[in-house]
Amino acid sequence: MNIILLSGGSGKRLWPLSNDIRSKQFIKIFKKDDGTYESMVQRMYRMIRTVDPDATVTIATSKTQVSAINNQLGEDVGISIEPCRRDTFPAIALATAYLADVMHVPSDEAVVVCPVDPYVEEDYFTALKTLCDRAASGNANLVLMGMEPTYPSEKYGYVMSDICEANVRHGDTTEGGVGNTATSAQQMLVENQEADASLLDEATQQMLVENQTGDLFAPVLSFKEKPDLETAKSYLAQGALWNGGVFAYKLSYVLDKAHELIDFTDYNDLFNKYDTLTKISFDYAVVEKESNIEVMRFSGQWKDLGTWNTLTEAMEEPVIGEAILNDKCEDVHVINELNVPVLAMGIKNAVICASAQGILVSDKEQSSYIKPFVDKIDDRIMFSEKSWGSYRVIAVEEGSMTVMVTLNPGHGMHYHSHKLRDEVWTIISGNGTAFIDGVACEVKPGHVLTMKAGQKHKVEATTELKIVEVQIGDEISVHDKIKWV
Amino acid sequence: MNIILLSGGSGKRLWPLSNDIRSKQFIKIFKKDDGTYESMVQRMYRMIRTVDPDATVTIATSKTQVSAINNQLGEDVGISIEPCRRDTFPAIALATAYLADVMHVPSDEAVVVCPVDPYVEEDYFTALKTLCDRAASGNANLVLMGMEPTYPSEKYGYVMSDICEANVRHGDTTEGGVGNTATSAQQMLVENQEADASLLDEATQQMLVENQTGDLFAPVLSFKEKPDLETAKSYLAQGALWNGGVFAYKLSYVLDKAHELIDFTDYNDLFNKYDTLTKISFDYAVVEKESNIEVMRFSGQWKDLGTWNTLTEAMEEPVIGEAILNDKCEDVHVINELNVPVLAMGIKNAVICASAQGILVSDKEQSSYIKPFVDKIDDRIMFSEKSWGSYRVIAVEEGSMTVMVTLNPGHGMHYHSHKLRDEVWTIISGNGTAFIDGVACEVKPGHVLTMKAGQKHKVEATTELKIVEVQIGDEISVHDKIKWV
Repeated sequence: MNIILLSGGSGKRLWPLSNDIRSKQFIKIFKKDDGTYESMVQRMYRMIRTVDPDATVTIATSKTQVSAINNQLGEDVGISIEPCRRDTFPAIALATAYLADVMHVPSDEAVVVCPVDPYVEEDYFTALKTLCDRAASGNANLVLMGMEPTYPSEKYGYVMSDICEANVRHGDTTEGGVGNTATSAQQMLVENQEADASLLDEATQQMLVENQTGDLFAPVLSFKEKPDLETAKSYLAQGALWNGGVFAYKLSYVLDKAHELIDFTDYNDLFNKYDTLTKISFDYAVVEKESNIEVMRFSGQWKDLGTWNTLTEAMEEPVIGEAILNDKCEDVHVINELNVPVLAMGIKNAVICASAQGILVSDKEQSSYIKPFVDKIDDRIMFSEKSWGSYRVIAVEEGSMTVMVTLNPGHGMHYHSHKLRDEVWTIISGNGTAFIDGVACEVKPGHVLTMKAGQKHKVEATTELKIVEVQIGDEISVHDKIKWV
Repeated sequence: MNIILLSGGSGKRLWPLSNDIRSKQFIKIFKKDDGTYESMVQRMYRMIRTVDPDATVTIATSKTQVSAINNQLGEDVGISIEPCRRDTFPAIALATAYLADVMHVPSDEAVVVCPVDPYVEEDYFTALKTLCDRAASGNANLVLMGMEPTYPSEKYGYVMSDICEANVRHGDTTEGGVGNTATSAQQMLVENQEADASLLDEATQQMLVENQTGDLFAPVLSFKEKPDLETAKSYLAQGALWNGGVFAYKLSYVLDKAHELIDFTDYNDLFNKYDTLTKISFDYAVVEKESNIEVMRFSGQWKDLGTWNTLTEAMEEPVIGEAILNDKCEDVHVINELNVPVLAMGIKNAVICASAQGILVSDKEQSSYIKPFVDKIDDRIMFSEKSWGSYRVIAVEEGSMTVMVTLNPGHGMHYHSHKLRDEVWTIISGNGTAFIDGVACEVKPGHVLTMKAGQKHKVEATTELKIVEVQIGDEISVHDKIKWV
């Protein structure tokens, strides 16, 4: 299976765990069997490998996320880097060209495209494989995954398929009719989510099962924009499915479309002229114009964890990090990335999150309105994952910034210099080799290195290396960095 | 006026703003006219000076608080240092001897003793002066201040005075009777705190006023231990007053008592044998055994700000530090000492407090039950005020601790060394002179000094000096410090 994972987003809505560099898919909140935590992107990557160990996974993303991806998934993962933001059609075209020209995937093979950030279970990946196989072997140009709605959401587009429309029109007992009955039964479930499935008579339950296996694919009749609540309800009554932006196609199909719309020769050419491309979504440029398109029903778990409210629902335990909750707390989730404790007393229905970026204390329902407030907050990056490790700002004073730098074993930073600041490194643990203006020097705890503005420097870690870096200068900025080969 | 301010307490109940070093009286939360904040001890010291610019103020406290007192009040304040904790009788005896032998206050002068941490207004200090004058010129050996109760509290002891007992017994219209009527009127106020004073008829109000001026002093009949609620109500019905631990006496009186109970010659002798003294409270050793004792009624504001609930009531504005509250927050107080923002959304009746020590998010009512939880939390000191400035831990890693050190202009730390750790100083702002093993060196931003374990070092600030100090060693402890002259 070939997969393109779309990894975007700036992640304001999960502040302070996300920032302009760390999007929500990189937050480690999912507990693994070994007690450590993994992020959405790590979870999805691991699950793909479980279902299909030979899958070719390519992550389509912006430059800013490359370090975090390499940090979390290693250096072997394929990355199609968007030089700048140009919406989903250019991004998918570029990633498809990457697969064809860089990964040498034959153009009659199929690829499945999906966002990296929904919360899903293993059955989702099995379904992705089915979707991909259908695109490879079927007759449709595009095969979309349609998620069975669990509620009349206003935040998704909807897919109307041949089955649902037919059902509503005829209401008969042909194959379409079975679908109709099944859809109505699902509707009952939706409208009364507390209801036990046993309320459905056996025949209906049986029909549901048959429908799920029998009518897996159907031609798409139309797409509906994000509706209001009443319209959403009527869509559900018609058996409509959510459009989750998950679809599969043969490489040749999207390459042809790309050549129709963009003048380019191959991947490198497309990459180099990427900033000249018009911003346009894949839905608008391709999906909505395609008549030979199918939808595949998916009834498994598929959740957007885009708000604190939904994210905390997916947490296996109420606390990550150091925290004490007294017994008068109810429905409280704490994520504490600082190294001092959180104490919560008598708090209800709330999320508490502390990171180097800031501290959020929010009623869960209120947390979905966070964005405008975060927009007001100074967006200085206080922590970041790099390909070689991570850094965390530990003190900001006028004319200086102090940073805890951690290098992973065997990794090193790029050779670089700064124009406007001096730096002092104090090694606090581990060992490695530092280079200053071409002179190498072994480093170990207690060693101090000073770099004046303009001096080229880097360090390579033999074992995990921790350094307290004091930056001193009138204008300290992440943009003051010159890279050297 | 001579005043001894008792400054004690470890301050667990206001965690994370207080810690084992910073007791509640040093927390800066009271806004001054110039927009800066002052602590309880600063507020009290300033108010004493306003009422009596010539007052001799001596603070009786433990060694651990001396640095914070010098930092907040300057070097000129008199401090009677208790070498170890021995309860209030030895502490007051020592401070009294300090006044007599060090400050050379004549032994027939009076002194007033009061805790440093109640929240009071200026009328309190006028009352202290009246109390002190009465002790100097009156016949009683001890003159106590009795606070008019505002509710039947279970956490104070009560003072039964001649007036109230007499009133209850006779209920006539003599002078005692006026007291009785007044007391009943006050009782009405207590029982219906929402009631407007205008509900009292004019004659009663007049009597109240007359009583307050007329019956300012009265002999004490008895003391009552902290009662349960029902008993407290009955005390209020008898016109009892709270015993707030505020009293005045002639120096000679307590010096005589001290010589009766302790074998010592003068202040220095008492100081040197302090650790051999028996722990005993002043109430038990002196007050409860004294028959010639008066109480002075005080009806002004007198509040214990010992819990987050009461402390936040005294805050002039809901937020100190960087914080954003959305409009769905109700009755929320935020104190944020960190340099990253707090965002609160939809939170009600809560206090949020963030410091280098930790983060508290508590329902206000629940906050009074904080102590056992704080007892469970690692009590590593993360910030402290020193006589020369302050320090704040900014990172803790295995084998190292990084500290932001700030020296006030013109101040310097003691010459010292450490056995088990090396230190690296990076100067980030200001200038001054450092000394390492006797060698002086001017320092300015960008300078780096390294001290190996065993090397004596200190620094003196010319202007405000900020230093990032990296401590490196297997056993890092505040106790690993050798002072040199």
